[in-house]
Amino acid sequence: MSFKTAVCQMLVSHSKSDNISKAKSMIEEAVSQGAELIIMPEMFNCPYENTSFPDFAESYPDGETVKFLAQTAKENKIYLVGGSVPESAETESGRQIFNTSFFFDPQGQLIVRHRKVHLFDIDIEGGISFRESDTLGRGDQITVAGTKWCDIGLAICYDMRFPELMRAMVLKGAKMILIPAAFNTTTGPAHWEITLKTRAVDNQTFVIAASPARNLEAAYHAYGHSLIVDPWGEILAEAGTGEEIIYASIDLELVDRVRRQLPLLRHRRTDLYRLEVNSQPMAQK
Amino acid sequence: MSFKTAVCQMLVSHSKSDNISKAKSMIEEAVSQGAELIIMPEMFNCPYENTSFPDFAESYPDGETVKFLAQTAKENKIYLVGGSVPESAETESGRQIFNTSFFFDPQGQLIVRHRKVHLFDIDIEGGISFRESDTLGRGDQITVAGTKWCDIGLAICYDMRFPELMRAMVLKGAKMILIPAAFNTTTGPAHWEITLKTRAVDNQTFVIAASPARNLEAAYHAYGHSLIVDPWGEILAEAGTGEEIIYASIDLELVDRVRRQLPLLRHRRTDLYRLEVNSQPMAQK
Repeated sequence: MSFKTAVCQMLVSHSKSDNISKAKSMIEEAVSQGAELIIMPEMFNCPYENTSFPDFAESYPDGETVKFLAQTAKENKIYLVGGSVPESAETESGRQIFNTSFFFDPQGQLIVRHRKVHLFDIDIEGGISFRESDTLGRGDQITVAGTKWCDIGLAICYDMRFPELMRAMVLKGAKMILIPAAFNTTTGPAHWEITLKTRAVDNQTFVIAASPARNLEAAYHAYGHSLIVDPWGEILAEAGTGEEIIYASIDLELVDRVRRQLPLLRHRRTDLYRLEVNSQPMAQK
Repeated sequence: MSFKTAVCQMLVSHSKSDNISKAKSMIEEAVSQGAELIIMPEMFNCPYENTSFPDFAESYPDGETVKFLAQTAKENKIYLVGGSVPESAETESGRQIFNTSFFFDPQGQLIVRHRKVHLFDIDIEGGISFRESDTLGRGDQITVAGTKWCDIGLAICYDMRFPELMRAMVLKGAKMILIPAAFNTTTGPAHWEITLKTRAVDNQTFVIAASPARNLEAAYHAYGHSLIVDPWGEILAEAGTGEEIIYASIDLELVDRVRRQLPLLRHRRTDLYRLEVNSQPMAQK
């Protein structure tokens, strides 16, 4: 019972409509190759810049990008993770913009939406400096989506830095973790691959990370290197820095086999430490 | 304010007295090179075999190995982590053997002892099979030692597989984590380096792992590759598979700098998830 998944490592431009067209053609290419679960990168419709987030933000369900995602999932009968987009939403504290991933099923219905819960505020001497919290609101939910294959955890980029969040998704049942993400040329070479592999190994899940291609004309240089890792930490597919689609066949039996042979989850000493996760409803459309 | 640390990746034989002699000469060599904190490997006085643990087990403070460690720390005025040894101890459930790390200060006083809390029970098809719980008892404490430099977390081998334990030590104040460990030739190549590096990066601590050298005449083939990693995930020193001492200069200011530039610990969303750690006294002599 295996299925094919694809990551579209697309080059993001300053035009939303161009980005949507590019996404459409890459998704259709992946579908033609048999992919049933397709993952787009973080901020695939928008340059990764604080100044762009408000201009490119849109609301669910009427925004141009989210409509396109729902329709494309339905037309192609695929599970589609719409990387992330700047989402404008009315909240208790007024209108806010979130870095949000919309996950659609093959009927074009929204299964879950994940709003990035850890905002990327970093200031490295001689390296990258960025403050998402200048423009973005913080999500408040740990996100696991039910699919026909298994439960799938969904997180965005900096969220992957927090082993607690990864574990929480697994304790909620996730056997795969999907991470639209745009690491950069400072943190990427240092931390991207080891972190993704270790999340897979610790939690004995597949981990799939989808980065934009590196655009040297953009202000923010994404690391690229989209990655598909199995529960033993083996790399099944890895992109370079340019625009490309990577594929892997996912066999969920491997999750059960690894968890049986090296029973990490069962060996946790919950008498000594315990991860308390706030109970909350699944994010719904 | 930096200091020199050393890991003695020694070859463990079937003779306890030979092992102690070897340890003595390697420690004296490291001291002659200026090391002030010296870490021995897991089960450095005993073959890593269930059948050997009862024969080699000894009690604190009268056992041959622990006496040697206390005396060697005092004579050389060093902090000395005695890797681990099979410790025989009276407990509420009768006499038990633990996989225990004894950590001595430069006065030869025991600062803490860590009894391995996660026992290594694994059964990989076509690979390694081992059940520590057949002979060993489980420790019940999360161990952090106060030193003149900083608080230091102490864990043993399989303990490092559990991000919760690593985080718990850091939340108790650790800026370094020391891990006497004997991965093997199945799990070593797959998981050793990425796991140690990711623990350092996630927790923004130095991580030092001390393995025995690989002994092809022993039943259990240790992976070797003792490792010293800084809080950014950079490798400061790495051993091969044979007997050798590796050294690194530890500058604790780097912990503070990394935590300032990339404030992972502060960015945890403790409103969404929280690691509850059982409060317990520090392990004392």
